Amino acid sequence: MRSVQVGICGLGTVGSGVFNVISRNSSNINQRANCAINIAQIGARRDNPNCDTGSTNVVRDIFEVAQNPDIDIVVELIGGTTVAYDLVMTALKNNKHVVTANKALIAEHGMEIFSVAASKGLVVAYEAAVAGGIPIIKGLREGLSANQVNWVAGIINGTTNFILTEMDTKGRDFNDVLVEAQEKGYAEADPTFDVEGIDAAHKLVILASIAFEMPLTLEGLYTDGITQLEPQDVAYAKELGYAIKHLGIARQTKQGVELRVHPTLVPQASMIAGVNDVANAVMVNADAVGTTLFCGPGAGAEPTASSVIADIVDVARTIDAPAEAKVNALGCPISALEQRNIVAIEEIETSFYMRFSALDKPGVLSEITSIMGDTGISIEAIVQKEQPAGEDYVNVIIVTNVTQEKLLSTAVERIENLETVRDSIKFIRVEHLDQ
Amino acid sequence: MRSVQVGICGLGTVGSGVFNVISRNSSNINQRANCAINIAQIGARRDNPNCDTGSTNVVRDIFEVAQNPDIDIVVELIGGTTVAYDLVMTALKNNKHVVTANKALIAEHGMEIFSVAASKGLVVAYEAAVAGGIPIIKGLREGLSANQVNWVAGIINGTTNFILTEMDTKGRDFNDVLVEAQEKGYAEADPTFDVEGIDAAHKLVILASIAFEMPLTLEGLYTDGITQLEPQDVAYAKELGYAIKHLGIARQTKQGVELRVHPTLVPQASMIAGVNDVANAVMVNADAVGTTLFCGPGAGAEPTASSVIADIVDVARTIDAPAEAKVNALGCPISALEQRNIVAIEEIETSFYMRFSALDKPGVLSEITSIMGDTGISIEAIVQKEQPAGEDYVNVIIVTNVTQEKLLSTAVERIENLETVRDSIKFIRVEHLDQ
Repeated sequence: MRSVQVGICGLGTVGSGVFNVISRNSSNINQRANCAINIAQIGARRDNPNCDTGSTNVVRDIFEVAQNPDIDIVVELIGGTTVAYDLVMTALKNNKHVVTANKALIAEHGMEIFSVAASKGLVVAYEAAVAGGIPIIKGLREGLSANQVNWVAGIINGTTNFILTEMDTKGRDFNDVLVEAQEKGYAEADPTFDVEGIDAAHKLVILASIAFEMPLTLEGLYTDGITQLEPQDVAYAKELGYAIKHLGIARQTKQGVELRVHPTLVPQASMIAGVNDVANAVMVNADAVGTTLFCGPGAGAEPTASSVIADIVDVARTIDAPAEAKVNALGCPISALEQRNIVAIEEIETSFYMRFSALDKPGVLSEITSIMGDTGISIEAIVQKEQPAGEDYVNVIIVTNVTQEKLLSTAVERIENLETVRDSIKFIRVEHLDQ
Repeated sequence: MRSVQVGICGLGTVGSGVFNVISRNSSNINQRANCAINIAQIGARRDNPNCDTGSTNVVRDIFEVAQNPDIDIVVELIGGTTVAYDLVMTALKNNKHVVTANKALIAEHGMEIFSVAASKGLVVAYEAAVAGGIPIIKGLREGLSANQVNWVAGIINGTTNFILTEMDTKGRDFNDVLVEAQEKGYAEADPTFDVEGIDAAHKLVILASIAFEMPLTLEGLYTDGITQLEPQDVAYAKELGYAIKHLGIARQTKQGVELRVHPTLVPQASMIAGVNDVANAVMVNADAVGTTLFCGPGAGAEPTASSVIADIVDVARTIDAPAEAKVNALGCPISALEQRNIVAIEEIETSFYMRFSALDKPGVLSEITSIMGDTGISIEAIVQKEQPAGEDYVNVIIVTNVTQEKLLSTAVERIENLETVRDSIKFIRVEHLDQ
């Protein structure tokens, strides 16, 4: 049996998961790879108590692994975009195939990395970079290769989904849940990347690039996190039959491609509304297949290892195949990727949830609905909440039909200027994801 | 650009879908395949009005396609296991790769077909044979290649799922919905294959073979259809927080592999309970990844074509690759498949829903619960329904905790023998699919 030599760089949560799963399931894995996959070397600054590396050669300098002439595949699991970038480029320079779980690296430097790899007939595989253990890169890039994609929408960050699930099911406050998520290890000490949507943006860019055959770029992508989400909006959404999820959405329209990450109301009856806690899910709507949904664990040592190893198996199995037999990094060859116009957030068309505080007196609601009508926005539902004791103001909730965001902004501004309306208007986008 | 010649045999629903999608999306498809995919010939007994084959060479004898020296890939879309078997064997004999959507053919003759193909270095691909447009074969066989699978469970027949959804949401009767399904084209004139679970059994065998690295075999598989399902059980299940789905379940246990297709109560809150109408979904629970779910359209011209073409793309892209670079038909090489003990249905362990008609008088329920206790079965819930006017008997519903089916059968027999219990006891298996 052929043997393929793998070097693992990074022995943190994912690295130790990869080592442990390969050790445990090596007989099955080797059969599926049609070769023996051998962990020839590990590069790690320190050992990991969750991982008994036994007699495996462990070095402290990861660049030693990238330059080791015996190694065929370098697995980059150190994270970040500086040292990881140098490591991957060094590996490619030394004619190694690369497997990585690093979404930031691929989103930010993917074009350069894939170009260098393609010019040398090397593979850079990154299944674990998006949605953890869910084989969505394979599903989209190979499983749906017959299709033109209309849209992709997903819960692609487990931390925010855990926080939103707690807010939804227990009526808790964002900051309160965040502290718990940090204690449980679901959120980093600095949670910015997750809760501000940056991590989801990285993943969305990768999905969009495959879906729409366009170069990886974060430019023009709209990102809004969940830090400003209030429990009352979660509760009102629920009353109206919606759940609030933090979605990454990429959609082909006549104007170009929408690329946006933001809290979104989705109907409770939709499958994606049932994706809770740290689970991830990606929906793909495409011309031939219709709508598919891929769901599973979006993070964690072994789920992520599952995807990393699937990539290792693919690379190892095809290691002696000619270049054209290998799957292109982004589905089509780099030369076929086309720059798309990224639709500005003001230009997108969707429905909206709005909440504001209006004086509880006759004529106020009609004034507001006139403004909506004048602006060309039709209303799907309007609810006036019970007035709290001793208050002159009531909460008014509106769900609009599909409209353009800039029309919504115009209406918001005009309503905010009314003397009968207090404070600023809160609005959240609504998606039905059924077409 | 290389060019790969494809011959399509059968121009029915799926065949015309394949032709139309390839024609429409050829530019994207060719980029993803790293070669030009050319439909060189179509073999079909008659033309299809949904498909303008233009200048494509169409012949009436499908065997002409299988023997055409210019053709690289034969796509078998005629269905059945007689002519289709001869066609596939002829294609292999003539050194053609094969793509098929034929679950019955693969389930019944897969071992022979894969052996012949492997001995000649040919690929037989069959993504479309299971769950229509969902790339579940790829997801399971490649995407989860790092894993040892614990269980697979799925809604893998769209016809039965449509009927059950109607029974559930509208309280309708099986026969009534079946007629509508036939009118809508969701069910065949002879619906036996679908409603008796034979089609689902074929698909389950394929999933189980990949999941547990065992030869394809229908032997020992337990199949129960939905024809005996009564609206009252659907309604009672709903009251108790369950939906009834027709599931195929394959599970690794200490005794061997469970292989069973039957109506199943699943918690309403589970994602699979939300898979409605003709949609399909497959859940996979495996040691590294945990639980994943793949959902999408289980049938139809273009969803099925999506999977057929994905296979064509894979075969075409790797057509010049060495044999060991190609994915084995069942994940691991045929020589590594191992016969497993198929667990008899009496030996399986699960929960049960029971319904029976008991005399409404003191002591009857305690007599019944004593029998359950004596048999070693613990009860999770027991509900006595209101007695209909003028009736002495009431419906009693029991949901048990996990027990062995033969213990349940013993209890059923003893309870049926009670003078206070009328008619036979109805029971349906319950699965939580959460571990």
